[in-house]
Amino acid sequence: MVQKTYVTYNEVHKLCQASAEKILNEFQPNLMIAIGGGGYVPARILRSFLKRPGNPNIPIQAIGLSLYEQLPVASNTGPTTPAIEKDVEQMGTRVTRTQWLDLSSLSMSNLVGKNVLIVDEVDDTRTTLEYAVKELTKDVDEAAAKMGMPAGETKFGVFVLHNKNKEKKGKIPGNMVSEGRYMAAEEVGDVWICYPWEATDIDEHDRLAAEQKK
Amino acid sequence: MVQKTYVTYNEVHKLCQASAEKILNEFQPNLMIAIGGGGYVPARILRSFLKRPGNPNIPIQAIGLSLYEQLPVASNTGPTTPAIEKDVEQMGTRVTRTQWLDLSSLSMSNLVGKNVLIVDEVDDTRTTLEYAVKELTKDVDEAAAKMGMPAGETKFGVFVLHNKNKEKKGKIPGNMVSEGRYMAAEEVGDVWICYPWEATDIDEHDRLAAEQKK
Repeated sequence: MVQKTYVTYNEVHKLCQASAEKILNEFQPNLMIAIGGGGYVPARILRSFLKRPGNPNIPIQAIGLSLYEQLPVASNTGPTTPAIEKDVEQMGTRVTRTQWLDLSSLSMSNLVGKNVLIVDEVDDTRTTLEYAVKELTKDVDEAAAKMGMPAGETKFGVFVLHNKNKEKKGKIPGNMVSEGRYMAAEEVGDVWICYPWEATDIDEHDRLAAEQKK
Repeated sequence: MVQKTYVTYNEVHKLCQASAEKILNEFQPNLMIAIGGGGYVPARILRSFLKRPGNPNIPIQAIGLSLYEQLPVASNTGPTTPAIEKDVEQMGTRVTRTQWLDLSSLSMSNLVGKNVLIVDEVDDTRTTLEYAVKELTKDVDEAAAKMGMPAGETKFGVFVLHNKNKEKKGKIPGNMVSEGRYMAAEEVGDVWICYPWEATDIDEHDRLAAEQKK
């Protein structure tokens, strides 16, 4: 049975607060891109902590991505591996855009050469993050080419509340990690994280979170 | 001095929960439009409570609106009214889009004839809400015309955590109110609402909120 971990709102708030200094000092984002719905809450909280006196808020663009875990396709190969492993192996994943950057309000050229922080709540299989980083990089490189600028001038970073230490299906660029642009407020095992915004009884949720602390 | 009201995360959560039943029974939204950044948190929480077993999540589109309160313009008229009143009277407001619907992922035609719930944290001067309702209505009516359908088939609703009972600069359609499509989880006076996502010290914020309750 997968272990459940309960995270309270105030813990989410403090995870954002604790990461903000590192994000400000080491990454200095010009723009946040919140992956909805999970990235909405951390992105909004982070905005408060990234605000520097005398400077405007760091703008947030929201994108919507849905991850569909497809059913395994029927196979003609014999049962040489246990069915369950086969299923996992053959299980495809597909990311669908429900919202993308609005290019009537935001010119892609505004992103060229900037530091863009992609925000989500959890890095589970990394599939969604791979998609976001790849597609945004592609769009920005295209915009750069149109401006006669080289590709790769835009620095993408990632912030998640929790990174699950497990084998990842998705990949992010190696230099994103080596250059400290991948930032997880907390590293966790392959647990079931119960976020407060999913709680049907928030008092009970907090009680379970407190019990877990003991 | 303006009175400060402290709202905790769990209170925000419960305000969404308490409103969800009314929203589901009386409005039945097909789509939420979250006005960022303030609408992000309530929209995400609301999504959990609007989910019905066996049905998919109600999708959220995020839009970004910034409200600029312009400085009063210089006037040649004599000081027949106190300066302070004059200032308020002459103060203009301007709403700027930082993000709008992404028409590459979402066809406006998908909104025609649907129930669309606009979500924000607070209805203060109503200027932002007026802008959102007007502009979304305009876009949807245009889409309907292209489809050969009459205007006004899409029902817009509004959900805010707090409505401040004060004179409003912005107007929303009268039938939105009369038909119960304007929903505020809580009616408050013209107070300064401190939302938890703006707190630099969330424990102190909660302490002040608890003290206020006494």
